[in-house]
Amino acid sequence: MSNGAQDKGLIFVVSAPSGTGKSTICRRLLAACPDLEFSVSHTSRMPRPGEVDGKDYHFISRADFDLRIARGEFVEWVENYGNLYGTSAQAIDGVLERGKDLLLDIEPRGARAIKERYPDAVFVFVLPPSLDELLKRLEKRGHESSDVIQTRFAQAERELREVLWYDYAVFNEDLETAIRQTVAVYWAEKSKISRLRGKMDRFFKFSQEG
Amino acid sequence: MSNGAQDKGLIFVVSAPSGTGKSTICRRLLAACPDLEFSVSHTSRMPRPGEVDGKDYHFISRADFDLRIARGEFVEWVENYGNLYGTSAQAIDGVLERGKDLLLDIEPRGARAIKERYPDAVFVFVLPPSLDELLKRLEKRGHESSDVIQTRFAQAERELREVLWYDYAVFNEDLETAIRQTVAVYWAEKSKISRLRGKMDRFFKFSQEG
Repeated sequence: MSNGAQDKGLIFVVSAPSGTGKSTICRRLLAACPDLEFSVSHTSRMPRPGEVDGKDYHFISRADFDLRIARGEFVEWVENYGNLYGTSAQAIDGVLERGKDLLLDIEPRGARAIKERYPDAVFVFVLPPSLDELLKRLEKRGHESSDVIQTRFAQAERELREVLWYDYAVFNEDLETAIRQTVAVYWAEKSKISRLRGKMDRFFKFSQEG
Repeated sequence: MSNGAQDKGLIFVVSAPSGTGKSTICRRLLAACPDLEFSVSHTSRMPRPGEVDGKDYHFISRADFDLRIARGEFVEWVENYGNLYGTSAQAIDGVLERGKDLLLDIEPRGARAIKERYPDAVFVFVLPPSLDELLKRLEKRGHESSDVIQTRFAQAERELREVLWYDYAVFNEDLETAIRQTVAVYWAEKSKISRLRGKMDRFFKFSQEG
């Protein structure tokens, strides 16, 4: 029997191709949900002007990063343009054990690694209104040949197909609606009986004592 | 392979003990969600002043009701103070096949019958802030003996325990928050990948043709 302990926090993963309004959605989600904290990644790259250590990223040296990889400290990590980016298991577990929820803004490959380690995590994919819209955006970007655009489009489409193993899809046809919908998913997950065992125990216990 | 057909509607069941704000929550939910329609029950009782046939209830004779029970037309039915109330399977299926969603305001026993026949339905239980609050409400009501109040309280508590097999619990500590939370559950369910197969097919198909 549970003693009515605090329910453990949840991991809320949001993935989206760039330009889908993901950072705005995440920022507004954090503002709307006081129990939700942003997961700060580790990186080996240098801070850019204005970036704050421990807020935007945990900035560490390449050597330190390599050591942490070797120790298995990262649930997932990736190398982009020679810089390493990773999500530390310790950072995740620390937040969850405080009963807080954690927002991870992460691409599908990293999300899969999260799912393997934290099967109860919630996975939301933000999609453009249509693939046609995505193609237009790629074409608008600039001066690339039609071949390059087609390759990028095929790659983006492949990434989007990852949505099929996610829990939820939010079509960003209108940004405000997409924000409300993402907040709704978070609220609904917080209202699931399976996540309210502690609260339920306290609810029914109170009457027996009172 | 799906041909990108319309996704089937969902059944959204809301249960709550009386006085928990259930009718307000249901009314506001319907106003906020245009694809959601209220399920009109059948009853053998006479219409009260102002009640409209086909809107508040389908008013039918006792003989007609008995015949429909015998034919197995009701997913669930109940007798209250000599009057019969029931939910017709045909009415439910008609709405779902039009791709619309259906709101059922129904007590836990009826909800169980819905779950048996429609395992994909969504079940939301609206709870009072605490059992203590519920007891206060029962005591306030009037001039009953402490024994009667205790019996009613025990009965209400038993009914509330049904929440444990529901999908979601909404604690009505503040009515506006409870409404937003119930709407959020509906929106989230509509964003589940498992309910978006048709939309996903159309999304990915468009690009292959376009």
